[in-house]
Amino acid sequence: MANHFKILKKSKLSQARLSKLKTAHGIINAPFFMPIATRGAVKNLTVEEIKDLKAEIILSNTYHLLLRPGVALMKKYGGLHQFMRWSAPILTDSGGFQVFSLAKHRKITPQGVYFSDPQNGQKYYLTPQKAIQIQKAIGSDIMMVLDECPPYPVTEKYADESLELTTKWAALCKKEHQKKPNSQLLFAIVQGSTFKDLRIKSAKQLTAIGFDGYAIGGVAVGEPREKMKEVLNWTIPELPADKPRYLMGLGRPEEIVEAVKGGVDMFDCVIPTREARHGRLYIWKSQISNLKSQVFYRTININNAKFAKDLSSINNSNLKSYSKAYLHHLFKTNETLGMRLATLNNLNFYLTLMAEIRNNIKNGKL
Amino acid sequence: MANHFKILKKSKLSQARLSKLKTAHGIINAPFFMPIATRGAVKNLTVEEIKDLKAEIILSNTYHLLLRPGVALMKKYGGLHQFMRWSAPILTDSGGFQVFSLAKHRKITPQGVYFSDPQNGQKYYLTPQKAIQIQKAIGSDIMMVLDECPPYPVTEKYADESLELTTKWAALCKKEHQKKPNSQLLFAIVQGSTFKDLRIKSAKQLTAIGFDGYAIGGVAVGEPREKMKEVLNWTIPELPADKPRYLMGLGRPEEIVEAVKGGVDMFDCVIPTREARHGRLYIWKSQISNLKSQVFYRTININNAKFAKDLSSINNSNLKSYSKAYLHHLFKTNETLGMRLATLNNLNFYLTLMAEIRNNIKNGKL
Repeated sequence: MANHFKILKKSKLSQARLSKLKTAHGIINAPFFMPIATRGAVKNLTVEEIKDLKAEIILSNTYHLLLRPGVALMKKYGGLHQFMRWSAPILTDSGGFQVFSLAKHRKITPQGVYFSDPQNGQKYYLTPQKAIQIQKAIGSDIMMVLDECPPYPVTEKYADESLELTTKWAALCKKEHQKKPNSQLLFAIVQGSTFKDLRIKSAKQLTAIGFDGYAIGGVAVGEPREKMKEVLNWTIPELPADKPRYLMGLGRPEEIVEAVKGGVDMFDCVIPTREARHGRLYIWKSQISNLKSQVFYRTININNAKFAKDLSSINNSNLKSYSKAYLHHLFKTNETLGMRLATLNNLNFYLTLMAEIRNNIKNGKL
Repeated sequence: MANHFKILKKSKLSQARLSKLKTAHGIINAPFFMPIATRGAVKNLTVEEIKDLKAEIILSNTYHLLLRPGVALMKKYGGLHQFMRWSAPILTDSGGFQVFSLAKHRKITPQGVYFSDPQNGQKYYLTPQKAIQIQKAIGSDIMMVLDECPPYPVTEKYADESLELTTKWAALCKKEHQKKPNSQLLFAIVQGSTFKDLRIKSAKQLTAIGFDGYAIGGVAVGEPREKMKEVLNWTIPELPADKPRYLMGLGRPEEIVEAVKGGVDMFDCVIPTREARHGRLYIWKSQISNLKSQVFYRTININNAKFAKDLSSINNSNLKSYSKAYLHHLFKTNETLGMRLATLNNLNFYLTLMAEIRNNIKNGKL
């Protein structure tokens, strides 16, 4: 899709930029955060609630959808939008990350990867071509190339061979997509672990092939936080300025702010939803956030006994009418409504954070 | 509360009646069904959703609230309405049923019952007076007397002694309530197992004391369905016609229809919510229900493989936009959203059933 990305403003204080990303199911204001709907549902929430939270895009996982319901049924359903009744944009990862981290008995060949469903042992063979075919059946607005995501730490030799494979697969993904071009965008994934030369090589190779956007993969896999910053600093200058940049799997609120300042436009992370299910809530420190401060938020564990007596609201926004004491009670009595309210709190926090970030760029403050 | 119950119409075809029950938090149209909010939450649902389902009253369990959060905190919270942000009526059971069915090491004395919390072994002593004090702290609109609910089957001797104890405790509950009279209603519970003479004796004794309403307890505890019908037939004629009648813990849709025809005004049951959590859905057989038919509904198990391909709506009412295939997928992938949608379906079915019952009485068809 030509001209799908429009930069509205570049910050004078940092590499941050305000932009709009156009997709088949709508325009998304960037920088943005994608709530995770692994299996076609943001855990505990309806699509109406996700809309009410003002999420403009969600992320689903190809690996999980490939296992259940599977490609044949997904085609029958007419794609994921129709299936889950979500009419706004969806990004799907390629399945690579989960194959390497979740699947059993995986075996990589230059042509693709063999793996088994851990639940029932059923065997699968995922190739770059198949990753695109599956994402076309899903009908996501943004598809990701199949990549190999090496663990951390890894030898330079392994990281180098791995990124070469990822580049080769990326080219095959693009070729497969172009067989039947449509309005789905295709993003590449920069790898190279924590090696400067490799990150630069990966970014150059992928840029030379040409994609609708570029993701930085292989971060948030256990490397020190400082390393992640370096990876960003090496990689971003090598990526085309007129294409969206996506930092995969990140992160904590202050990491997102830092990455935006480094020039990143797109984020996804399990933190707000996963931590919500364990009772960890993200809370603004003050009504109006000051993102320059390192301490603009705090987290609380609602299971803590002191909240049994705390009648203050969960937040002053979408959960004004519920007290912390009530949420504490729901967690202590294993009522699933508790996970749902906590999820609504945390996603509201993250999506408000992104709106604040956009405002701050707009007003020349970030 | 005087004149809290008003009969609008008596059926000419049966003992069914259309009525209104006035409580401190609003008027309820009867016959009605109470969704169960055991620990101050209808499982998986917010109060907004319960209101959207048009539930006019919910039921909470004194036993569970006594254990967690406990009476001291409940007082601090200003009662259950405030705590869970539900502004419509609430009925609370007395805790008796759960003490006898769930608690460990219970010991009955003429003055009350000792029991331990199965979770942490903490010891409690529940008396008729305390049952009222706790329900006053909860602030429910309708309180139930402490009763002993014998199991089925039981000897006539045991059932007789038990109902005498229940009558004595009911009188003590009333006395306790009258120490500080308020707008909370107090209902008695008829016991007597499956013995005609005992049911009649219990009803007469309780009526002589005088309560705001009368429940029929000790049913749906394992007795044959025919026995339950007999119990109703023996008991109802002995209860004052100008007071509400409540059949505790029932039941399947056709049982509710039968009991309404027998003169019952109020119901509660775990069936719609509990079965929803296992994927069993209640479905109307036709758009317009015909309650005379024995087969006005059916149940389906959404886990059944055939639903993977069923793109029809879950129902034509509150879940029009979700397909059975999607709900099947949510259950197969353990997404809690599935339990929530199934609960919304089943409560919608039960509450629609009650509205249909009221319409049928109004139109002279039941």
